[in-house]
Amino acid sequence: MSDQANTPPEKTSHQGRKAVISREDLINAALKLLGPQRSISSLSLREVARAADIAPNSFYRHFKDMDELAIALIDQAGRSLRKIIGEARQSASPQKSVIRTSTESFIRQLNADEALLHILLREGSVGSPAFKAAVERELTFFEEELCADLVRLGNAKGKPLFAPELVAKGMTRLVFEMGTRAMDLPEEHQTDIMEDTIVMLRMILIGSEQMAKNKTNS
Amino acid sequence: MSDQANTPPEKTSHQGRKAVISREDLINAALKLLGPQRSISSLSLREVARAADIAPNSFYRHFKDMDELAIALIDQAGRSLRKIIGEARQSASPQKSVIRTSTESFIRQLNADEALLHILLREGSVGSPAFKAAVERELTFFEEELCADLVRLGNAKGKPLFAPELVAKGMTRLVFEMGTRAMDLPEEHQTDIMEDTIVMLRMILIGSEQMAKNKTNS
Repeated sequence: MSDQANTPPEKTSHQGRKAVISREDLINAALKLLGPQRSISSLSLREVARAADIAPNSFYRHFKDMDELAIALIDQAGRSLRKIIGEARQSASPQKSVIRTSTESFIRQLNADEALLHILLREGSVGSPAFKAAVERELTFFEEELCADLVRLGNAKGKPLFAPELVAKGMTRLVFEMGTRAMDLPEEHQTDIMEDTIVMLRMILIGSEQMAKNKTNS
Repeated sequence: MSDQANTPPEKTSHQGRKAVISREDLINAALKLLGPQRSISSLSLREVARAADIAPNSFYRHFKDMDELAIALIDQAGRSLRKIIGEARQSASPQKSVIRTSTESFIRQLNADEALLHILLREGSVGSPAFKAAVERELTFFEEELCADLVRLGNAKGKPLFAPELVAKGMTRLVFEMGTRAMDLPEEHQTDIMEDTIVMLRMILIGSEQMAKNKTNS
Protein backbone atom coordinates (compact mmCIF):
# COMPACT_ATOMS: atom_id res chain seq x y z
CA MET A 1 0.00 0.00 0.00
CA SER A 2 2.42 2.70 1.18
CA ASP A 3 6.10 2.63 0.42
CA GLN A 4 6.63 1.71 4.06
CA ALA A 5 5.46 -1.78 3.26
CA ASN A 6 8.39 -2.07 0.87
CA THR A 7 11.01 -1.10 3.42
CA PRO A 8 13.15 -4.17 4.12
CA PRO A 9 12.38 -5.38 7.65
CA GLU A 10 16.02 -5.15 8.71
CA LYS A 11 16.37 -1.41 8.19
CA THR A 12 15.30 1.24 10.64
CA SER A 13 12.48 3.17 9.00
CA HIS A 14 12.14 6.94 8.97
CA GLN A 15 11.42 8.88 12.19
CA GLY A 16 13.90 6.63 14.04
CA ARG A 17 11.33 3.84 14.50
CA LYS A 18 12.50 0.30 15.06
CA ALA A 19 11.81 -1.96 12.12
CA VAL A 20 12.71 -5.21 13.84
CA ILE A 21 10.66 -6.12 16.81
CA SER A 22 9.54 -9.42 18.28
CA ARG A 23 6.06 -10.71 18.92
CA GLU A 24 6.81 -10.44 22.65
CA ASP A 25 7.76 -6.75 22.29
CA LEU A 26 4.31 -6.10 20.86
CA ILE A 27 2.60 -8.11 23.59
CA ASN A 28 4.55 -6.23 26.24
CA ALA A 29 3.77 -2.85 24.70
CA ALA A 30 0.06 -3.73 24.75
CA LEU A 31 0.30 -5.00 28.34
CA LYS A 32 1.78 -1.67 29.44
CA LEU A 33 -1.09 0.22 27.82
CA LEU A 34 -3.72 -1.90 29.54
CA GLY A 35 -4.18 -0.61 33.04
CA PRO A 36 -6.64 -2.24 35.42
CA GLN A 37 -9.37 -0.10 33.86
CA ARG A 38 -8.94 -0.60 30.10
CA SER A 39 -10.44 -3.42 28.12
CA ILE A 40 -8.48 -4.97 25.27
CA SER A 41 -11.04 -3.91 22.70
CA SER A 42 -10.32 -0.24 23.47
CA LEU A 43 -6.71 -0.63 22.26
CA SER A 44 -6.01 0.55 18.73
CA LEU A 45 -3.39 -0.86 16.41
CA ARG A 46 -1.80 2.59 15.96
CA GLU A 47 -1.55 3.04 19.69
CA VAL A 48 0.15 -0.33 20.21
CA ALA A 49 2.50 0.36 17.30
CA ARG A 50 3.39 3.75 18.78
CA ALA A 51 4.02 2.24 22.21
CA ALA A 52 6.25 -0.43 20.64
CA ASP A 53 7.98 2.25 18.59
CA ILE A 54 7.29 0.66 15.22
CA ALA A 55 5.44 1.75 12.10
CA PRO A 56 1.80 0.58 12.10
CA ASN A 57 2.43 -1.62 9.06
CA SER A 58 5.13 -3.57 10.90
CA PHE A 59 2.44 -4.81 13.26
CA TYR A 60 1.19 -7.20 10.58
CA ARG A 61 4.46 -9.13 10.52
CA HIS A 62 3.41 -10.65 13.84
CA PHE A 63 -0.36 -10.50 14.09
CA LYS A 64 -3.11 -10.72 11.50
CA ASP A 65 -5.13 -8.12 13.38
CA MET A 66 -5.78 -6.70 16.84
CA ASP A 67 -7.99 -9.65 17.76
CA GLU A 68 -5.08 -12.02 17.27
CA LEU A 69 -2.93 -9.85 19.54
CA ALA A 70 -5.74 -9.77 22.12
CA ILE A 71 -5.93 -13.54 22.23
CA ALA A 72 -2.14 -13.75 22.59
CA LEU A 73 -2.46 -11.33 25.54
CA ILE A 74 -5.15 -13.48 27.19
CA ASP A 75 -3.02 -16.62 26.69
CA GLN A 76 0.00 -14.95 28.19
CA ALA A 77 -2.01 -13.60 31.14
CA GLY A 78 -3.39 -17.09 31.78
CA ARG A 79 0.02 -18.74 31.57
CA SER A 80 1.63 -16.24 33.93
CA LEU A 81 -1.17 -16.52 36.47
CA ARG A 82 -1.18 -20.30 36.42
CA LYS A 83 2.53 -20.19 37.19
CA ILE A 84 2.15 -17.66 40.04
CA ILE A 85 -0.80 -19.40 41.69
CA GLY A 86 0.60 -22.89 41.05
CA GLU A 87 3.77 -21.85 42.91
CA ALA A 88 1.65 -20.48 45.75
CA ARG A 89 -0.06 -23.88 46.05
CA GLN A 90 3.34 -25.54 46.43
CA SER A 91 4.20 -23.22 49.32
CA ALA A 92 1.34 -24.57 51.48
CA SER A 93 2.33 -25.84 54.92
CA PRO A 94 0.58 -27.33 57.94
CA GLN A 95 0.23 -23.76 59.24
CA LYS A 96 -1.07 -22.30 55.99
CA SER A 97 -3.47 -24.33 53.88
CA VAL A 98 -3.36 -24.64 50.11
CA ILE A 99 -6.64 -22.78 49.96
CA ARG A 100 -5.25 -19.86 51.90
CA THR A 101 -1.91 -19.59 50.09
CA SER A 102 -3.48 -19.70 46.67
CA THR A 103 -6.39 -17.37 47.44
CA GLU A 104 -3.99 -14.85 48.96
CA SER A 105 -1.78 -15.10 45.93
CA PHE A 106 -4.80 -14.59 43.67
CA ILE A 107 -5.93 -11.47 45.52
CA ARG A 108 -2.37 -10.08 45.49
CA GLN A 109 -2.56 -10.25 41.70
CA LEU A 110 -5.57 -7.92 41.77
CA ASN A 111 -3.21 -5.19 42.93
CA ALA A 112 -0.12 -6.18 40.97
CA ASP A 113 1.48 -3.67 38.60
CA GLU A 114 0.93 -5.88 35.62
CA ALA A 115 -2.81 -6.21 35.18
CA LEU A 116 -2.68 -9.86 34.13
CA LEU A 117 -5.56 -10.98 36.29
CA HIS A 118 -7.65 -7.99 35.26
CA ILE A 119 -7.29 -9.07 31.64
CA LEU A 120 -8.84 -12.46 32.41
CA LEU A 121 -11.54 -11.12 34.71
CA ARG A 122 -12.53 -8.34 32.34
CA GLU A 123 -12.37 -10.16 29.03
CA GLY A 124 -14.13 -13.19 30.51
CA SER A 125 -17.16 -11.03 31.20
CA VAL A 126 -17.18 -8.13 28.71
CA GLY A 127 -14.97 -9.44 25.90
CA SER A 128 -16.05 -10.55 22.44
CA PRO A 129 -17.10 -14.21 22.03
CA ALA A 130 -13.55 -15.07 20.82
CA PHE A 131 -12.00 -13.36 23.86
CA LYS A 132 -14.41 -15.10 26.22
CA ALA A 133 -13.54 -18.44 24.64
CA ALA A 134 -9.83 -17.70 25.16
CA VAL A 135 -10.46 -16.90 28.85
CA GLU A 136 -12.57 -20.05 29.20
CA ARG A 137 -9.67 -22.08 27.78
CA GLU A 138 -7.28 -20.57 30.33
CA LEU A 139 -9.71 -21.29 33.17
CA THR A 140 -9.96 -24.90 32.01
CA PHE A 141 -6.15 -25.28 32.07
CA PHE A 142 -6.18 -23.73 35.52
CA GLU A 143 -8.82 -26.20 36.70
CA GLU A 144 -6.91 -29.18 35.33
CA GLU A 145 -3.73 -28.21 37.18
CA LEU A 146 -5.65 -27.49 40.37
CA CYS A 147 -7.48 -30.82 40.08
CA ALA A 148 -4.19 -32.74 39.78
CA ASP A 149 -2.83 -30.96 42.89
CA LEU A 150 -6.04 -31.59 44.86
CA VAL A 151 -6.05 -35.30 44.03
CA ARG A 152 -2.39 -35.62 45.00
CA LEU A 153 -2.89 -33.75 48.29
CA GLY A 154 -6.11 -35.61 49.12
CA ASN A 155 -4.43 -38.97 48.66
CA ALA A 156 -1.40 -37.86 50.68
CA LYS A 157 -3.71 -36.83 53.56
CA GLY A 158 -5.71 -40.05 53.25
CA LYS A 159 -8.77 -37.96 52.37
CA PRO A 160 -9.67 -38.72 48.76
CA LEU A 161 -12.14 -36.44 47.01
CA PHE A 162 -15.51 -37.02 45.41
CA ALA A 163 -15.59 -35.59 41.84
CA PRO A 164 -12.26 -33.71 42.19
CA GLU A 165 -12.73 -32.12 38.75
CA LEU A 166 -15.88 -30.41 40.07
CA VAL A 167 -14.07 -29.35 43.25
CA ALA A 168 -11.47 -27.68 41.03
CA LYS A 169 -14.13 -26.12 38.81
CA GLY A 170 -16.26 -24.86 41.69
CA MET A 171 -13.22 -23.35 43.43
CA THR A 172 -11.90 -21.72 40.27
CA ARG A 173 -15.26 -20.26 39.22
CA LEU A 174 -16.00 -18.98 42.70
CA VAL A 175 -12.58 -17.35 43.06
CA PHE A 176 -12.92 -15.69 39.66
CA GLU A 177 -16.45 -14.55 40.40
CA MET A 178 -15.43 -13.09 43.75
CA GLY A 179 -12.33 -11.58 42.11
CA THR A 180 -14.48 -9.85 39.49
CA ARG A 181 -16.56 -8.27 42.28
CA ALA A 182 -13.44 -7.39 44.27
CA MET A 183 -11.33 -5.87 41.56
CA ASP A 184 -12.85 -2.40 41.64
CA LEU A 185 -13.01 -2.19 45.44
CA PRO A 186 -10.49 -0.71 47.88
CA GLU A 187 -7.96 -3.16 49.34
CA GLU A 188 -9.59 -3.50 52.76
CA HIS A 189 -12.82 -4.72 51.15
CA GLN A 190 -10.80 -7.13 49.03
CA THR A 191 -9.47 -8.69 52.23
CA ASP A 192 -13.01 -9.23 53.54
CA ILE A 193 -14.02 -10.83 50.25
CA MET A 194 -10.92 -13.01 50.38
CA GLU A 195 -11.71 -14.28 53.88
CA ASP A 196 -15.29 -15.10 52.81
CA THR A 197 -13.97 -16.86 49.73
CA ILE A 198 -11.57 -18.98 51.78
CA VAL A 199 -14.48 -20.23 53.93
CA MET A 200 -16.53 -21.06 50.82
CA LEU A 201 -13.63 -22.96 49.25
CA ARG A 202 -13.16 -24.93 52.47
CA MET A 203 -16.85 -25.85 52.34
CA ILE A 204 -16.39 -27.25 48.83
CA LEU A 205 -13.30 -29.23 49.83
CA ILE A 206 -14.73 -30.61 53.07
CA GLY A 207 -18.03 -31.39 51.34
CA SER A 208 -16.23 -33.37 48.66
CA GLU A 209 -14.17 -35.28 51.26
CA GLN A 210 -17.37 -36.10 53.12
CA MET A 211 -19.16 -37.18 49.95
CA ALA A 212 -16.27 -39.49 49.12
CA LYS A 213 -16.61 -40.95 52.63
CA ASN A 214 -20.37 -41.41 52.34
CA LYS A 215 -20.23 -42.34 48.68
CA THR A 216 -23.55 -40.52 48.54
CA ASN A 217 -24.88 -40.02 45.08
CA SER A 218 -27.67 -37.66 44.07
CA MET B 1 -38.67 22.67 23.34
CA SER B 2 -41.17 21.40 20.74
CA ASP B 3 -44.89 22.12 20.86
CA GLN B 4 -45.35 18.49 21.83
CA ALA B 5 -44.13 19.37 25.34
CA ASN B 6 -47.12 21.72 25.66
CA THR B 7 -49.71 19.09 24.81
CA PRO B 8 -51.83 18.42 27.92
CA PRO B 9 -50.98 14.94 29.24
CA GLU B 10 -54.58 13.77 29.26
CA LYS B 11 -55.20 14.25 25.57
CA THR B 12 -54.21 11.78 22.91
CA SER B 13 -51.45 13.44 20.93
CA HIS B 14 -51.23 13.52 17.16
CA GLN B 15 -50.54 10.33 15.19
CA GLY B 16 -52.96 8.46 17.46
CA ARG B 17 -50.36 7.93 20.19
CA LYS B 18 -51.46 7.24 23.73
CA ALA B 19 -50.76 10.15 26.03
CA VAL B 20 -51.58 8.37 29.28
CA ILE B 21 -49.46 5.40 30.14
CA SER B 22 -48.25 3.87 33.37
CA ARG B 23 -44.72 3.26 34.59
CA GLU B 24 -45.38 -0.49 34.23
CA ASP B 25 -46.39 -0.04 30.58
CA LEU B 26 -43.00 1.50 29.88
CA ILE B 27 -41.17 -1.23 31.79
CA ASN B 28 -43.08 -3.89 29.88
CA ALA B 29 -42.41 -2.23 26.53
CA ALA B 30 -38.69 -2.20 27.33
CA LEU B 31 -38.79 -5.83 28.51
CA LYS B 32 -40.31 -6.89 25.20
CA LEU B 33 -37.55 -5.14 23.27
CA LEU B 34 -34.80 -6.83 25.29
CA GLY B 35 -34.30 -10.29 23.88
CA PRO B 36 -31.72 -12.62 25.38
CA GLN B 37 -29.07 -10.92 23.23
CA ARG B 38 -29.60 -7.19 23.85
CA SER B 39 -28.07 -5.23 26.69
CA ILE B 40 -30.09 -2.52 28.37
CA SER B 41 -27.63 0.18 27.32
CA SER B 42 -28.44 -0.51 23.67
CA LEU B 43 -32.06 0.58 24.17
CA SER B 44 -32.88 4.11 23.11
CA LEU B 45 -35.53 6.31 24.64
CA ARG B 46 -37.21 6.82 21.24
CA GLU B 47 -37.36 3.09 20.68
CA VAL B 48 -38.97 2.43 24.06
CA ALA B 49 -41.43 5.28 23.50
CA ARG B 50 -42.32 3.87 20.10
CA ALA B 51 -42.84 0.38 21.53
CA ALA B 52 -45.06 1.81 24.27
CA ASP B 53 -46.90 3.88 21.68
CA ILE B 54 -46.28 7.22 23.37
CA ALA B 55 -44.54 10.42 22.31
CA PRO B 56 -40.90 10.49 23.41
CA ASN B 57 -41.56 13.46 25.69
CA SER B 58 -44.17 11.49 27.65
CA PHE B 59 -41.38 9.17 28.78
CA TYR B 60 -40.15 11.83 31.21
CA ARG B 61 -43.38 11.74 33.19
CA HIS B 62 -42.21 8.42 34.63
CA PHE B 63 -38.44 8.29 34.39
CA LYS B 64 -35.76 10.94 34.63
CA ASP B 65 -33.74 9.19 31.93
CA MET B 66 -33.03 5.79 30.40
CA ASP B 67 -30.71 4.88 33.28
CA GLU B 68 -33.58 5.21 35.71
CA LEU B 69 -35.71 2.92 33.53
CA ALA B 70 -32.82 0.44 33.32
CA ILE B 71 -32.54 0.23 37.09
CA ALA B 72 -36.31 -0.25 37.37
CA LEU B 73 -35.95 -3.13 34.87
CA ILE B 74 -33.16 -4.75 36.90
CA ASP B 75 -35.22 -4.39 40.10
CA GLN B 76 -38.23 -5.96 38.46
CA ALA B 77 -36.17 -8.80 36.98
CA GLY B 78 -34.68 -9.49 40.42
CA ARG B 79 -38.05 -9.42 42.16
CA SER B 80 -39.66 -11.77 39.63
CA LEU B 81 -36.78 -14.24 39.77
CA ARG B 82 -36.67 -14.28 43.55
CA LYS B 83 -40.33 -15.16 43.50
CA ILE B 84 -39.96 -17.93 40.91
CA ILE B 85 -36.91 -19.54 42.51
CA GLY B 86 -38.23 -19.04 46.04
CA GLU B 87 -41.37 -20.95 45.05
CA ALA B 88 -39.22 -23.69 43.54
CA ARG B 89 -37.42 -24.04 46.88
CA GLN B 90 -40.74 -24.54 48.62
CA SER B 91 -41.60 -27.40 46.23
CA ALA B 92 -38.65 -29.50 47.45
CA SER B 93 -39.52 -33.00 48.66
CA PRO B 94 -37.64 -36.03 50.00
CA GLN B 95 -37.38 -37.20 46.38
CA LYS B 96 -36.17 -33.90 45.00
CA SER B 97 -33.77 -31.78 47.01
CA VAL B 98 -33.97 -28.02 47.43
CA ILE B 99 -30.76 -27.72 45.48
CA ARG B 100 -32.19 -29.63 42.54
CA THR B 101 -35.58 -27.90 42.43
CA SER B 102 -34.08 -24.44 42.59
CA THR B 103 -31.22 -25.06 40.16
CA GLU B 104 -33.65 -26.59 37.66
CA SER B 105 -35.94 -23.62 38.06
CA PHE B 106 -33.00 -21.26 37.53
CA ILE B 107 -31.90 -23.00 34.33
CA ARG B 108 -35.49 -23.03 33.04
CA GLN B 109 -35.42 -19.25 33.31
CA LEU B 110 -32.46 -19.15 30.91
CA ASN B 111 -34.86 -20.31 28.21
CA ALA B 112 -37.98 -18.46 29.32
CA ASP B 113 -39.68 -16.07 26.93
CA GLU B 114 -39.18 -13.13 29.21
CA ALA B 115 -35.45 -12.61 29.45
CA LEU B 116 -35.52 -11.67 33.14
CA LEU B 117 -32.55 -13.78 34.13
CA HIS B 118 -30.56 -12.59 31.12
CA ILE B 119 -31.00 -9.03 32.32
CA LEU B 120 -29.35 -9.84 35.65
CA LEU B 121 -26.61 -12.03 34.17
CA ARG B 122 -25.77 -9.56 31.44
CA GLU B 123 -25.98 -6.30 33.37
CA GLY B 124 -24.09 -7.82 36.31
CA SER B 125 -21.10 -8.37 34.06
CA VAL B 126 -21.23 -5.80 31.25
CA GLY B 127 -23.49 -3.09 32.68
CA SER B 128 -22.47 0.39 33.85
CA PRO B 129 -21.34 0.72 37.50
CA ALA B 130 -24.89 1.80 38.47
CA PHE B 131 -26.41 -1.23 36.73
CA LYS B 132 -23.89 -3.57 38.33
CA ALA B 133 -24.71 -2.10 41.73
CA ALA B 134 -28.42 -2.72 41.08
CA VAL B 135 -27.71 -6.35 40.16
CA GLU B 136 -25.49 -6.74 43.23
CA ARG B 137 -28.38 -5.46 45.37
CA GLU B 138 -30.74 -8.04 43.85
CA LEU B 139 -28.20 -10.83 44.42
CA THR B 140 -27.89 -9.77 48.05
CA PHE B 141 -31.68 -9.95 48.53
CA PHE B 142 -31.60 -13.35 46.88
CA GLU B 143 -28.86 -14.53 49.25
CA GLU B 144 -30.72 -13.30 52.31
CA GLU B 145 -33.87 -15.21 51.38
CA LEU B 146 -31.90 -18.33 50.52
CA CYS B 147 -29.98 -18.09 53.78
CA ALA B 148 -33.21 -17.92 55.81
CA ASP B 149 -34.54 -21.01 53.99
CA LEU B 150 -31.28 -22.92 54.47
CA VAL B 151 -31.17 -22.18 58.20
CA ARG B 152 -34.80 -23.26 58.59
CA LEU B 153 -34.27 -26.49 56.61
CA GLY B 154 -30.98 -27.29 58.36
CA ASN B 155 -32.58 -26.95 61.78
CA ALA B 156 -35.58 -29.02 60.71
CA LYS B 157 -33.25 -31.80 59.53
CA GLY B 158 -31.15 -31.54 62.71
CA LYS B 159 -28.16 -30.53 60.55
CA PRO B 160 -27.35 -26.93 61.39
CA LEU B 161 -24.99 -25.06 59.08
CA PHE B 162 -21.65 -23.38 59.61
CA ALA B 163 -21.71 -19.77 58.29
CA PRO B 164 -25.07 -20.15 56.48
CA GLU B 165 -24.73 -16.66 54.98
CA LEU B 166 -21.60 -17.86 53.17
CA VAL B 167 -23.35 -21.04 52.06
CA ALA B 168 -26.05 -18.83 50.51
CA LYS B 169 -23.50 -16.49 48.97
CA GLY B 170 -21.31 -19.28 47.56
CA MET B 171 -24.34 -21.06 46.09
CA THR B 172 -25.79 -17.88 44.58
CA ARG B 173 -22.52 -16.71 43.07
CA LEU B 174 -21.71 -20.12 41.67
CA VAL B 175 -25.15 -20.52 40.12
CA PHE B 176 -24.97 -17.06 38.55
CA GLU B 177 -21.44 -17.67 37.30
CA MET B 178 -22.42 -21.01 35.76
CA GLY B 179 -25.60 -19.40 34.38
CA THR B 180 -23.57 -16.70 32.68
CA ARG B 181 -21.45 -19.38 30.95
CA ALA B 182 -24.55 -21.42 30.10
CA MET B 183 -26.78 -18.70 28.72
CA ASP B 184 -25.34 -18.64 25.22
CA LEU B 185 -25.08 -22.44 24.89
CA PRO B 186 -27.57 -24.90 23.40
CA GLU B 187 -29.98 -26.50 25.87
CA GLU B 188 -28.26 -29.90 26.07
CA HIS B 189 -25.05 -28.22 27.25
CA GLN B 190 -27.06 -26.24 29.77
CA THR B 191 -28.25 -29.52 31.26
CA ASP B 192 -24.66 -30.75 31.68
CA ILE B 193 -23.70 -27.47 33.34
CA MET B 194 -26.75 -27.75 35.60
CA GLU B 195 -25.82 -31.27 36.74
CA ASP B 196 -22.25 -30.13 37.49
CA THR B 197 -23.62 -27.14 39.38
CA ILE B 198 -25.90 -29.32 41.50
CA VAL B 199 -22.90 -31.41 42.62
CA MET B 200 -20.91 -28.28 43.48
CA LEU B 201 -23.80 -26.85 45.51
CA ARG B 202 -24.13 -30.14 47.39
CA MET B 203 -20.42 -29.94 48.23
CA ILE B 204 -20.94 -26.49 49.73
CA LEU B 205 -23.95 -27.63 51.76
CA ILE B 206 -22.40 -30.87 53.02
CA GLY B 207 -19.13 -29.07 53.74
CA SER B 208 -20.95 -26.50 55.84
CA GLU B 209 -22.87 -29.22 57.74
CA GLN B 210 -19.61 -31.02 58.41
CA MET B 211 -17.89 -27.83 59.55
CA ALA B 212 -20.75 -27.14 61.96
CA LYS B 213 -20.27 -30.67 63.31
CA ASN B 214 -16.52 -30.29 63.69
CA LYS B 215 -16.72 -26.64 64.73
CA THR B 216 -13.42 -26.42 62.91
CA ASN B 217 -12.15 -22.92 62.44
CA SER B 218 -9.43 -21.82 60.02
